[in-house]
Amino acid sequence: MLDSKDINEYIEGLGSSARSASYVLSSTDTETKNLAIKSMADTIENRTKAILDANKVDIEEASKKDISDALIDRLELTEKRIKSMISSLLRVVELPDPIGEVAKLPTTPSGIKVSQMRVPLGVVGIIYESRPDVTADAAALCLKSGNACILRGGSESFRSNNEIAKCLNVGLIESNLPESSINLVGTVDRRAVSLLLSLDNYIDVIIPRGGKSLVGLISSEAKVPVIKHLDGICHVFIDKRAELQKALDIAINAKTYRYSICGAMETLLVHKEVAEVFLPKIGNAFKEKNVELRGCEETLNYIDVKKASEEDWVTEYLGPILSVKVVDSMQLAIEHIHLYGSSHSDSIVTEDSKRARLFINKVDSSSVMHNVPTCWADGFEYGLGAEVGISTDKFHARGPVGLKGLTCQKYIVEGNAELRGPN
Amino acid sequence: MLDSKDINEYIEGLGSSARSASYVLSSTDTETKNLAIKSMADTIENRTKAILDANKVDIEEASKKDISDALIDRLELTEKRIKSMISSLLRVVELPDPIGEVAKLPTTPSGIKVSQMRVPLGVVGIIYESRPDVTADAAALCLKSGNACILRGGSESFRSNNEIAKCLNVGLIESNLPESSINLVGTVDRRAVSLLLSLDNYIDVIIPRGGKSLVGLISSEAKVPVIKHLDGICHVFIDKRAELQKALDIAINAKTYRYSICGAMETLLVHKEVAEVFLPKIGNAFKEKNVELRGCEETLNYIDVKKASEEDWVTEYLGPILSVKVVDSMQLAIEHIHLYGSSHSDSIVTEDSKRARLFINKVDSSSVMHNVPTCWADGFEYGLGAEVGISTDKFHARGPVGLKGLTCQKYIVEGNAELRGPN
Repeated sequence: MLDSKDINEYIEGLGSSARSASYVLSSTDTETKNLAIKSMADTIENRTKAILDANKVDIEEASKKDISDALIDRLELTEKRIKSMISSLLRVVELPDPIGEVAKLPTTPSGIKVSQMRVPLGVVGIIYESRPDVTADAAALCLKSGNACILRGGSESFRSNNEIAKCLNVGLIESNLPESSINLVGTVDRRAVSLLLSLDNYIDVIIPRGGKSLVGLISSEAKVPVIKHLDGICHVFIDKRAELQKALDIAINAKTYRYSICGAMETLLVHKEVAEVFLPKIGNAFKEKNVELRGCEETLNYIDVKKASEEDWVTEYLGPILSVKVVDSMQLAIEHIHLYGSSHSDSIVTEDSKRARLFINKVDSSSVMHNVPTCWADGFEYGLGAEVGISTDKFHARGPVGLKGLTCQKYIVEGNAELRGPN
Repeated sequence: MLDSKDINEYIEGLGSSARSASYVLSSTDTETKNLAIKSMADTIENRTKAILDANKVDIEEASKKDISDALIDRLELTEKRIKSMISSLLRVVELPDPIGEVAKLPTTPSGIKVSQMRVPLGVVGIIYESRPDVTADAAALCLKSGNACILRGGSESFRSNNEIAKCLNVGLIESNLPESSINLVGTVDRRAVSLLLSLDNYIDVIIPRGGKSLVGLISSEAKVPVIKHLDGICHVFIDKRAELQKALDIAINAKTYRYSICGAMETLLVHKEVAEVFLPKIGNAFKEKNVELRGCEETLNYIDVKKASEEDWVTEYLGPILSVKVVDSMQLAIEHIHLYGSSHSDSIVTEDSKRARLFINKVDSSSVMHNVPTCWADGFEYGLGAEVGISTDKFHARGPVGLKGLTCQKYIVEGNAELRGPN
């Protein structure tokens, strides 16, 4: 255990050397970054045994504590998981490099030439649970986007993360990049997290990857900007002009593709004009899938399910439960979404393209969908290649965040000694 | 004075009704927004006398307090200033509407169609000093970008702001927009500011407009994201390949165009190979302009000026003082800028385009310039039409912030019942 002065100095030191590395990375060419990531993948492959050994010790230690099976599952590495870690890295190599792209601005009053160049944010801090695969994935995304990073994984995965970080380090050395481009916090001391959150002179953004409580805690304490993912209370609205077989397929997929993902539907809204026909059908379908329905007063007129409480409309079940509400109009569906939703992903099922357009324009969510299930909300499925997370913020990045979310633009101004006149 | 419960309710009420208005504004067409702003401008013109009368009382009250002449100057309205307020509004009418612009994304693995639509942030809070002209300007920029706003101006300008807000309200009514689209905080109670800063369920971003101390205070307290402008410690680097007459013109303009703007040069960096010729010339030129120079050790070998202290390199003088340093290489100039600068605006003067390109790539500032003085850093001069401020953050918006900085993008996903398969 470090004393308070030492841990302060240690974290400050990480920040300061990450900042120095970031100045190198910001003008590192694509080829060098790709070489580094490829070499990281190779090294992880060669050292699979060492990583699995370290992981075994992590799991043994974790099992001694009172820890959930789900956590152990996320912590555990297997040969298959390491292979998938490697192929994630190789996928990042294939992604186009966002850095250096220049957008010219229109002509200026004075004739000076102004453009915007895409550049890295600088130093990215990533705070995550005990999931060792995030270590490699997050480091590669930061490096590809020209950012230095500071990684702080959950304490149960400490030994696994260290072994992986050694492999990442080899990649940096082999491509002549500063070793402080990727920094794994080398202590399980929890004070490290608070210190990172307040290091706003060195860290440009913090990305928490984990459950709602971790994210909430981090956002409330952070002085550094946070790209955060809170909850996904997603709605599917079956419009009066929906084709009902399509509506059925979409609603079932939206709920049952995977219960635990943030894009899973949590509330089904049904236009009253189709409720009488649609609700019994969907009721049966969900019964077969063992999904428990909780309905509004009017829903109970058509199907025999439990009554929903006010609490149900704001609950992210992440499991086989679904709340159902009958609405008198599309406007009321939109109002329900704004009042109870989490602005994550919401979909309308309708054959009327005008009504779809209205829904798309009016619903204020990070993804608004038409005739597809909400479970599509995912950076890879959107063609971003990979995602750092899904932002429920509106500020900076919204929805699935790819490499571009780890960048910003700087202005470039060029001229030939134009002077600014008196005013 | 409202009691604590009342002011809580009052501010919460402003937030909630601004949020409702934001849902209307997000899909209001350009014509309606322009009509509203035109009508605001007309009403301000018609009510010039009432505004000037209110302003007179504000000034009388302020003069009784111990308040600086500079503050009184910013507070004071004249017929000329009101005319310029009106023409600012009309300029916002002319700006292109950023809302609704759709960018298609590349094809997706599944065939679902994904695009991004530019949308308003939602509710913008603006906290500013006693400058009544900001009231109209900020409200118009928010409205044009489809945002509702909550305005909290300095207490000395309370009566003037109220008169202006009445005119803005007429514009909203005449174009059938919700009156809570623009909300002026109706109390001088300082607790209102803290309450606004913590209203993260209703306000999407806070923009402080004022000095460094106001901005620092707001950023440290805010739970809502802040677009902030801290200091502008801007550098001009005279490279060894500079044309010296050009360098002279640029350096003088960068410092003396206006001392008080954030884009004014505060430190001049001179490559040692041109120091012997350049420094005496620029020394004489600044002497004529009554600008005090403070030089590094080596500078003193060429000109007879005061010695600079470590403090000088981190000082934003905003007045006729300039620090001067001789550097052995461009790399050392860049390191000086990263160590002491504020990442605002920095310029290189050189005839060598390769060296210019290197400087532009490496310097991590919101504006990096070549052969122009730093005083060009300004949204209007960059062709953005108007600016909400100049951001010294990297997150969300960087450098001069125009209408686009008040927007974000949402994902639109369209398909024909594509379902997500098992994985």
